[in-house]
This record gives sequence, structure tokens and C-alpha cells, in this order.
Amino acid sequence: MQQEKGFHVAILGATGAVGQQMIKTLEEKDFPISKLTLLSSARSAGKKLQFKGVEYTVQEVQPESFAGVDIALFSAGGSVSKEFASHAVKHGAIVVDNTSAFRMDKNVPLVVPEVNEQDLHKQQGIIANPNCSTIQMVVALEPIRQKFGLNKVLVSTYQAVSGSGAAAVEELYDQTKAIINNEAYKPTILPVKGDKKHYQIAFNAIPQIDKFEENGFTFEEMKMINETKKIMNLPELHVAATCVRLPVATGHSESVYLEVNEESVSVQEIKALLTDAPGVVLQDDPSNQIYPMPADCVGKSDVFIGRIRKDLDESRGFHMWVVSDNLLKGAAWNSVQIAESLIKLGIVK
Amino acid sequence: MQQEKGFHVAILGATGAVGQQMIKTLEEKDFPISKLTLLSSARSAGKKLQFKGVEYTVQEVQPESFAGVDIALFSAGGSVSKEFASHAVKHGAIVVDNTSAFRMDKNVPLVVPEVNEQDLHKQQGIIANPNCSTIQMVVALEPIRQKFGLNKVLVSTYQAVSGSGAAAVEELYDQTKAIINNEAYKPTILPVKGDKKHYQIAFNAIPQIDKFEENGFTFEEMKMINETKKIMNLPELHVAATCVRLPVATGHSESVYLEVNEESVSVQEIKALLTDAPGVVLQDDPSNQIYPMPADCVGKSDVFIGRIRKDLDESRGFHMWVVSDNLLKGAAWNSVQIAESLIKLGIVK
Repeated sequence: MQQEKGFHVAILGATGAVGQQMIKTLEEKDFPISKLTLLSSARSAGKKLQFKGVEYTVQEVQPESFAGVDIALFSAGGSVSKEFASHAVKHGAIVVDNTSAFRMDKNVPLVVPEVNEQDLHKQQGIIANPNCSTIQMVVALEPIRQKFGLNKVLVSTYQAVSGSGAAAVEELYDQTKAIINNEAYKPTILPVKGDKKHYQIAFNAIPQIDKFEENGFTFEEMKMINETKKIMNLPELHVAATCVRLPVATGHSESVYLEVNEESVSVQEIKALLTDAPGVVLQDDPSNQIYPMPADCVGKSDVFIGRIRKDLDESRGFHMWVVSDNLLKGAAWNSVQIAESLIKLGIVK
Repeated sequence: MQQEKGFHVAILGATGAVGQQMIKTLEEKDFPISKLTLLSSARSAGKKLQFKGVEYTVQEVQPESFAGVDIALFSAGGSVSKEFASHAVKHGAIVVDNTSAFRMDKNVPLVVPEVNEQDLHKQQGIIANPNCSTIQMVVALEPIRQKFGLNKVLVSTYQAVSGSGAAAVEELYDQTKAIINNEAYKPTILPVKGDKKHYQIAFNAIPQIDKFEENGFTFEEMKMINETKKIMNLPELHVAATCVRLPVATGHSESVYLEVNEESVSVQEIKALLTDAPGVVLQDDPSNQIYPMPADCVGKSDVFIGRIRKDLDESRGFHMWVVSDNLLKGAAWNSVQIAESLIKLGIVK
């Protein structure tokens, strides 16, 4: 029996919420690894992390850290990606970048394997992993687009705080405890770390994720709009988004309105499509109160879809509710999946 | 100085979450009351409640309870309204009903004073108070409709648990405590009291409010759709809703997409309109992170609007974020406001 080839994988940002999920996902999906290099900023270097029962010491990232690396998974913030991606590429690694640094660069494929795996062939060393809220939506939309076309998407999101990192989750829980115990708690992270004001997230809903753009949309909303068009290769698609942060630790939910191109498509046809769609689990049985919820999706790599119904006025309009673990399909799992596709397509050999 | 006339007001369902808010609102708004009668089911009768420093004993409702009553505020569930409304009307009272029992009855005006106060003249003894999530939305939409027309409304809601009553709020807090302390907690109320299954609401989002209809929409969603058309007197309006319950005690939020009839309306024009609109407070300054949030609206009777922005593809399309205290403008305050309008218009003398 021929031994399966292993690859040298590096994770930059290994100690972060997504980085740790990447390690766990590589382990769970039994990714073919010959060598694992865990990297971080100086601040987190020296930390010990486990992979398949072996302890690894996280090293401070340097330009030379990528010598011999086949695949480098980046998740340490946009500025770190901008600083180190070219070094990794120079050393022959392919970078799968989970930040927004390169997503809209026309030389960088933005990939969700269920949607546009073939775009990986256009890579020039860097591949971008889309924003978490975009990924789960396009996985749900693509099978519908393939069969019936797609004209319009209006989404309102219900996003978990882990999208803002592990410290934000801690803030949610500490703040919740304080409110329940009638104690004071000063928010310092949410809605946006480093923004001027911070608001209570416990028992609240904050209609701001990331900073505001000139046009009144947040950067998160513009990411959903622009990334959806790029991934689906539909520059003319009408997309709009309202992104809202909830007191949920993990699991993004989305209320999606969409219009297909064809007339007289039925809910049954949409459900049948999604039953067989890759990466999708249909949970849609209202009579038995079956629908997706964030509390149920945690730790699962699929995109869960339910509440599919036809609009009562627009014959080409449908509504659906899309839920997924934002740290897995929204980040770590999609990155590892891209790495798997790179091997499958023979791009990484 | 002429003494202001007082009215005999009865509250049916006085011990419930909305009933108690009604008592508080009558007190705060200094409603002209000559006599107050507090009524409930047999189960809650005998309880003592305060109004303007005086203790009242809640009486069990009987057909004869309404003798001499001018205005009866009902909020004890649809079946109780159906049983007692005709008795109240027979005794000459005008019923303001906060349940869904009569809302779609063509002989019953469904009223939000900022929108269709004049419909009160059509009353035949019963006036319906709309669903909480509908009220705050139509207050936001009406000024826009008046100036620019209105063609389409797509709403996704972020609703607080107090809409399901005081026991649901207790469930949210007890469950939150249990989860934080790593203890087991069996949900018994949410999403819908009496439905087959109950789900965790703490740190979760549940896309079900009220029971499901045949068409896949929930009753709550159909209420928003049908009531909006009736209140705004726009039977042809395209309305769709997705209603979601959040781990928030009080304060409903709504992500609203709307299309006006006129072309080339600007965000500034919409903001200017809403600045002067009755019952509305504009909180819309993204550069200073000013937008409405449920945690800020509790105890206030206004509808708060922010995040107004023009759609990037549809020139007649706008997005906005609408927040209000679901127990006040969504229920108690709108009912008391209707009572005030009945006096102002000379319908109750």
C-alpha cells in the first residue's frame, strides 16, 4: 500500500479563536500533514498547543518561518497577512488567508469550495477565505443559482460574538454574569475592538459589525455584498445586507430573501435541490418545529437551512433561514477545505 | 378653572406583563380617570395592585363587570376577549383590545394613532390594538408613505421574549443563569407556550414566534403582513416578514427594507421626514456610532429609527433599523394612546 503523501502546513495566528479551530479541524479531518508549524505574533509566541497528542510550541513569525512550507493558513489579522504573505509565497508556500486583506484583489481567488473550487487554478500564491457571514450564504445560494438563476439577495444577519474573537466571547459571558448579579460592567470590546464606543451585548442586539463606510453601510455589510458577487461570479447581482451582532457565542444566522430568474419555481423544488447540495443540511419541517438554530450548529461543519417559503407577492421570491458555525464553515473549516481542494486539484503536490 | 372630566377605565388582564404596563402608563401619562376597575381571570383575582399610591384589588371578570365603564383595555388573551368584549360593549363601554381576536374583523378598526387615528370614527364598540412588531414598523413607514408612497416592505425581526409574557422573561433569565453555572435547564415556554417543542433561548436565536400556518409563515409573520396592509390602508402593498426571537428581555428590533414609489429620493430627505414625525426619534449618526438598540429603548414610548441608507442597486430602495419597547408602544402605550384619541375625537364623552 502506497503511503499517502504528507504536507508541511503552517498556521499563522495559531493561538487565536480561528487558529485553534484550524488545528482541531486539521486533526478531525485527518489532513495529510508531514510537518506542522505553529506561528504567532511575539506576544503569543512560546505558548504550547496540542495536535494529535503531540505538544507544539508556538513560534514568533519571521520572514524565514515559511521555508519548506507547502500550505500556510493565515488568521492573525489583515496587517499581519499583508506583512507576511509575500514572504510565504517567496518560499514557495501557498497562502490561504482568512483575513480581509486580499479578498477583493483581482489576482486573488476568493473561494468557497462548494461554489467556485475551480477558481483555485487562477491562484498566484495567495487564496482568500471569505468572510464568515458570506460563506454560509453562498453555500445556500449556489445550488439555487445553478438551477434557477439568481437576481437579488437581501440579507439580515444574526451574528455571534466569536466572530470578534475569543476576548469578545469572554466579554459576553462576563457581562451576562454581571447583569444577572446586578453588578456594573464596562464594555471594552464590542461592537468593534478599537472603535470609539463600546456597548452592552448581553440581552441586547447591536446593529454594527466592523466600522462604518461613507455610504452608511458597515464594512461587514460591504464584505457580504462585494464578496458574494465575486465568489458567485455575478457582478450584476443585486445584494444588500444588514449585519447585527447578538448575544450568541457561536453560530451565525441569516434571514435571506432571494429572487430567482425563473418564474413558477416551487418551494418543493428548492427543498429538493438543497437536500442534495454539497455542504448543506436541510432542516425544514415547520409542522414538527424543525428549523436551524445557532445553539444546535456549534461544532458542525455544515450549513443548515430551513424556513424556506415562497414570497406571497413576488412569484420569483423566496425566504430562507441559514445557520452555520462561524468558526468552522465560516473560517477554519473553509480554509482547511481550500487546502484539501488544492491537493485534490494537484495545485499543491 | 374647569375641572377635567374623568372616565371610568377597566383593565382586563391587569396582572399580566402588558396589564401592569397599562396601569403604569395610565399613571405616567396622567390619563383622566374617575374610576379604575382592575379585572382578571379567577386564577389571578384577589391580587393587590397600586395606582397613584392607592391599592386596588383585582376582581374576577364577569359579564356584569363592565357596568358604567367608559373604556375597557383588554389584554388577557384572545379567548377571554372573545368571551367578554360583547358584554363590555353591551354595557356601553368601548373596548380597546390588545389581542389578535378582532384585528382582521372588517368591522373593527385596527389603530396606531400616528397612522390611522381617523379610523376610530368607524368603531362599533371594539377597537383592536395591533401586534407589537407591526406597530413600531408602521409608525416608521407612515411618514415615508405620506411623502413618497410605499410599494414594498421586507422585514426581519429581532424580538424580545417579553412579547411571550412575564413567564418567558423568567425562563430567559433562569436559563441564562443555569447555562452560566453549567447546570441543566429544561425549557418549557419558548418559542410558543403550549406548542409541542420548547427550545433554549439563552445565547440562541429561534426563528419561530407563534405557531406555523399552512404556507410556512408563522402566525406572527402573517400578523405583520396583514395588519400592516390594514392599518396603512394599502391592500396591495407587498409585505413579507421573518420573525425571530432573541435572548433580549424587552425591546423589539427590526431590519426593514422598503421601496418608495418615487425615484431619486435621498437618505437626507427620509431623515428630515423622520426627524419631525410623530412618535419617532431619529438616532442615526454612524460616524459617532449612534443607532437604536433594544437595551436603550426600555421604558420609553417612542419608536427609534437609525441606520437609514439607500440600497446600492435599487434607486427606490432603502434600509433602516427600527427599535421600540414592545410592552409600551408595542402594547400598553398604544392602547392608552387609542383611549386618549377616543376622548380627543369626542367618541368617548
